[in-house]
Amino acid sequence: MVFKIKGIAIDIDGTITFKDRSLNCKTVEAIRKLQIPVVLATGNISCYARTTAKLIGVSDIVICENGGVVRFEYDGDDIVLGDVVECLRAAEYLRNFFEVELLDSEYRKSEVCLRRKFELEEGREALKKGGFDKIRLIDSGFAYHIVDARVSKGKALEYISKELGLNVKEFAAIGDSENDIDLLETAGIGIAVANADLKLKEMADIVTSKKDGEGVIEALEFLGLI
Amino acid sequence: MVFKIKGIAIDIDGTITFKDRSLNCKTVEAIRKLQIPVVLATGNISCYARTTAKLIGVSDIVICENGGVVRFEYDGDDIVLGDVVECLRAAEYLRNFFEVELLDSEYRKSEVCLRRKFELEEGREALKKGGFDKIRLIDSGFAYHIVDARVSKGKALEYISKELGLNVKEFAAIGDSENDIDLLETAGIGIAVANADLKLKEMADIVTSKKDGEGVIEALEFLGLI
Repeated sequence: MVFKIKGIAIDIDGTITFKDRSLNCKTVEAIRKLQIPVVLATGNISCYARTTAKLIGVSDIVICENGGVVRFEYDGDDIVLGDVVECLRAAEYLRNFFEVELLDSEYRKSEVCLRRKFELEEGREALKKGGFDKIRLIDSGFAYHIVDARVSKGKALEYISKELGLNVKEFAAIGDSENDIDLLETAGIGIAVANADLKLKEMADIVTSKKDGEGVIEALEFLGLI
Repeated sequence: MVFKIKGIAIDIDGTITFKDRSLNCKTVEAIRKLQIPVVLATGNISCYARTTAKLIGVSDIVICENGGVVRFEYDGDDIVLGDVVECLRAAEYLRNFFEVELLDSEYRKSEVCLRRKFELEEGREALKKGGFDKIRLIDSGFAYHIVDARVSKGKALEYISKELGLNVKEFAAIGDSENDIDLLETAGIGIAVANADLKLKEMADIVTSKKDGEGVIEALEFLGLI
């Protein structure tokens, strides 16, 4: 059995890191062996993503803010795919019902990030009643994100694939959270690590038996990439 | 022989990274064993520093922008110690003589970072002739930095020591570049890795026999910290 994988997209927090968000060094060493483009895909800001890419030593192509921002070079520019205005309006609206604490707001260009201080479903219900149908409220496992409904990690991967001259189905994708669902759907092969959200495991093509970074190594070996 | 070290300040690029700026994973594992506060000290921006601290898994106390910014918590605020205005004026003045390319200008709060496109000494000479005596032009080995003359990594370490209730002389410091000189001077014990600038090696208390990340491990072992 041979997989024809020409690129790989990997989530950062909870996928290549431990729960405390520190890197699994064995996983870093494994990723460095890959001979295909590695796209880090995160809900975090572009500066976090590009720093992680540099420290791991992979290509500087990153998906940030859940697909709202992509970046091709460390010293290049952010390409902003999402509109932050409606997201900010939604965050203000949520203040009517919940304690709302914004995270990294000075750095976010396409979305709003909130500390997880209320129930996700209650937040979604409030936004639905408020008529906010152009945004989505998603949970990265580390924070909530109010994102432009038109952007996602999967759409960002399509954007990057085109730029690289690849078909997005030639990508494999590995993640752990609900915000990775469309990334795994969009890629040719979708892999959930053992600690992943139940929803992600249900839709993934492959679920690893090991957790986070160890699961990533297991997947890379299974795919014959290392 | 016993060293009474209660904290350690470590430069990032060229000290715990390889020349391509990717992390030495062995060094990361060694740093994780430390039982004392680890302060990462870099010429890079606060977002780069806090990301690196999180990925390594040390305390979130960081010195950024060559001491122009310090930060105590990942989700905390930048404490800006340097004034960027005169630095920007100096950068504009340098355009009269050299090709000037600013780096990360949207993120820098206390200094200006330039790609190394001219000779350092020629740049310094030009600034001297232009009467710019409130700024310094320094070389981190990866970029040039125009910094407020009142700030330095060493002064930032003093600031942090006070906050932590430590004497700055209870810190050891490890670096590789000219912009680490005052950090090593300020700390109780100053250590240069084998790949360090000659000037840094000359003033350091200890020079390791191994390069960058391997040198850091050698130093931590010598100090009895791991």
